[in-house]
This record gives sequence, C-alpha cells and structure tokens, in this order.
Amino acid sequence: MMNHGVLDNIRIVLSHTTHPGNIGAAARAMKTMGLSSLYLINPKHFPDGHANAMSAGAEDVLENAVICRSLDEALQGTSLAVAMTARHRDLSHMVLSSREAAPQIMEYASEYKVALVFGTEMSGLTNEEVNKCQMLASIPSNPDFSSLNLASSVQVMAYELRMALPEAGVAGAKVRELALYDDVERFYQHLEQVMVQTGFLDPEKPKRLMQRLRRLFVRAQLEKQEVDILRGILSAIQKVD
Amino acid sequence: MMNHGVLDNIRIVLSHTTHPGNIGAAARAMKTMGLSSLYLINPKHFPDGHANAMSAGAEDVLENAVICRSLDEALQGTSLAVAMTARHRDLSHMVLSSREAAPQIMEYASEYKVALVFGTEMSGLTNEEVNKCQMLASIPSNPDFSSLNLASSVQVMAYELRMALPEAGVAGAKVRELALYDDVERFYQHLEQVMVQTGFLDPEKPKRLMQRLRRLFVRAQLEKQEVDILRGILSAIQKVD
Repeated sequence: MMNHGVLDNIRIVLSHTTHPGNIGAAARAMKTMGLSSLYLINPKHFPDGHANAMSAGAEDVLENAVICRSLDEALQGTSLAVAMTARHRDLSHMVLSSREAAPQIMEYASEYKVALVFGTEMSGLTNEEVNKCQMLASIPSNPDFSSLNLASSVQVMAYELRMALPEAGVAGAKVRELALYDDVERFYQHLEQVMVQTGFLDPEKPKRLMQRLRRLFVRAQLEKQEVDILRGILSAIQKVD
Repeated sequence: MMNHGVLDNIRIVLSHTTHPGNIGAAARAMKTMGLSSLYLINPKHFPDGHANAMSAGAEDVLENAVICRSLDEALQGTSLAVAMTARHRDLSHMVLSSREAAPQIMEYASEYKVALVFGTEMSGLTNEEVNKCQMLASIPSNPDFSSLNLASSVQVMAYELRMALPEAGVAGAKVRELALYDDVERFYQHLEQVMVQTGFLDPEKPKRLMQRLRRLFVRAQLEKQEVDILRGILSAIQKVD
C-alpha cells in the first residue's frame, strides 16, 4: 500500500464557486488523484443535485466538504496556502508553474497542512485572497486562451501532486518549521499597531501599505521562530514608546 | 511567437461520445493547451447546444471538428495512434504513463500526424479500437477511483503535451525591480540601530539575531520600493524614540 498521508494533508479550497456542477466535478477530479479534503467558501448553491451528479461517485468528498464563510476560516490550521492563478498579476509574488510547485507542496504536506486555493469561475481569486497565500502557482497554458475550467484546473493540479508522490518520500531533506497562519496574522496586526503608533501609517487608510508588507513577508514564507523574533522587536519598540 | 506546428500535428479523437457537454468541455481543454484538431467518431449528439455552452469560447474547435464513421477514418493520415486507457488490459501492448508518453508523442508530432484516441464515457475504448493503436497511454490515478471525466483526461494529456514543448513554462512572468545590494545593506544597518536603541538587541553580540533576520529578508528578495517602506518605518520609530 502506498502511504497517502501526504495527500491527506492537502485541502482543496474553492472560493465562491458559482456553478454547483463544478464543485461536483472538482470532487471527482480530487478523488481520482487520491485527494479527499474539500473546503468551500460561500458556494452559491450547495448542497445541490448537480454537484452530486457531476461527482459521479465522489459523493463522499462532497458529504465531508467543510463550508466556510471566509478564506481566513478555510485556511485555519494550514502552514502553506497556494493561490492558483491564471491571470497576470501586478504583484510581487513569485509565480511557480504547476509542475514546479507540486514537489514543494508535497514536501510541506509531508509535515503540515497545505491549502490549494481556487477562485471563482469568472474572475479567479481577488487580490485580497491572493495576498493571504504564501505561494502562487499557475498552470502553463495557451496565452491566447488560458481559461481552464475550474474542475480541470483542480484535475491538473491534483494530477501533478499525485505524480510527485513517489519522490515525496525520498526528497525528505529538511522541512522548515513554518509559522501557522494565525500567528502570522497576529504579527501583521501587531505591525500595523506599531506603524500607527509611530505615525508612519494613517489608520484611516492602512490598506495599500499593509498589503505591500504582507506580500513581502508572504514571499519569505515566515518560520515560527522568525515570527517570534519580529514580534519581539515590535514589543520592544512599544515599550520604549 | 511560439511555433505551434508540433501541436497542430496532434489530433484528439473522441470515439462514440455520449454527452455533448463532454465534447464541448474537451474542446475547451484542448484549446487551453494549444490543440485545435478534433475528430469525432459517431458522437451521439453533435452539433449540440450543450457542446457549445461547455466549450466556453472554443467554438472554433467545435466548428472545425471532423465527424467520422469509424476509427479507421479518424486515423487516416496519421503515423501514430495512441490509445488512452484507464483499465488494465490483457493485451500485449506496453502501457506508458501520460508523462512518459508525452515527449514521445511530441517527437513523432514534429514530423508526422499523431492521434490521441479517447473512448466512450462509460466503458472507454473497445479492444478492437485499442488494437488499431500503436501505443497505449494511461493517466496515473487512485486505484480505488480511477475514472477521470472524459474532458479531464483530455485536459491532463493536453497539458502533458504542452509541458513537453521546449518553451514550456509560465509565459511572461513579471520582472520585479529588486533592491540593490547597497540599499539592502543600509537597511540592515538601520534595523540593527533601531533594535539596539529599543533594547531588543545586545550591541555586544548582535551577530546571531542579525543573521536570522538577514536570512528572512534574503528569502523575500526585497524590491527597491519595499526597502524604502521598511526604512520609512524605522525612521518613524526613531523619531518617536
């Protein structure tokens, strides 16, 4: 028997899916590759007969799906969130191809919970959603017609993960102890507080600046110890202040 | 412009497809990966509104589809026919994985016409159909649930072909304006200063902590603008102090 523990650590997060058929088709795609953990953020229609019909035998994935109200909720407990994106974004994230991303995801998943986040059918993920992810991955496609169907994207990415399975055990190397999502969020709040206290940040319009800083730290993929250090620096600043 | 001649030599053959929606979804999957040549053997319903709807912009692939009465007809002009199969077969063919098959297919396609043959939704290709093909390829999947949707199979195989293009990769990844070495060094000095001033860092032995922080920011690959922001934050802290 193959050890599927790694795949069990990977959750597929579908944000604001419009068509329930796509949710069912995604569940089927997941199951064909050995994935079973599905999170749905505000699906337009769910549960739904079309979802069941399109799942074609993967009803168990649908029955166990976790319904969430926000991406924050869907990411709880994860150490790595991967934004799946087709569009070119004016962001400073590094975008990996699906093939480059898969082995890295599997390495994380050998120890931590990982989320693959897929946006809504028409427009994909919002920038706000992307900013909560630490990695961006994109499926190489025809530049003149790059819009894969949602379930097809799930299928290709799940396939890449499965193809990375045999090597995952070998490529043990050392896994960095990444900070948990919640801890990183608390760091951002702390940083925002200090910036407001020192007058660097206008509390009326903190959005743009915080977004840029989030992007920076997201790229760094913060370790647990690093978050502790950064928060220690912030606390020391507040004491002097 | 990329040279797509190789992909133009590859035709997707769908045999006895039951659901027209699957034909449309397959057309979309093809086009996202740069394939355009579709052959349909006795489709149950075609042309059909569902096919158009599911093609989602790949109507040109449907309009140019060649309707055939037999596999023989669909294979005319080809030098290699690849049977796509999920089931284990008691046949003397060698079965390649989709990933093993892709580069070989691309090599043939650089000179000859190649057909990838997909069977009907419920039962796949008949043995008679498989016997007309020179190569068998199979998409690795969960042995307990191996039935990929027809269009998903087309998507994965088309994706593998595209990934076997020499130019494969994420097209046109944006070039970030990275900070210059000197600017980053000045930021580290500034950060060290502030940490000493706030009492977080012992000026006698700053090495270890500064090293950890350097590692963090090195991973992030700081941009010029980000260094400006970080130094702005540090200056604001010093003013309050």
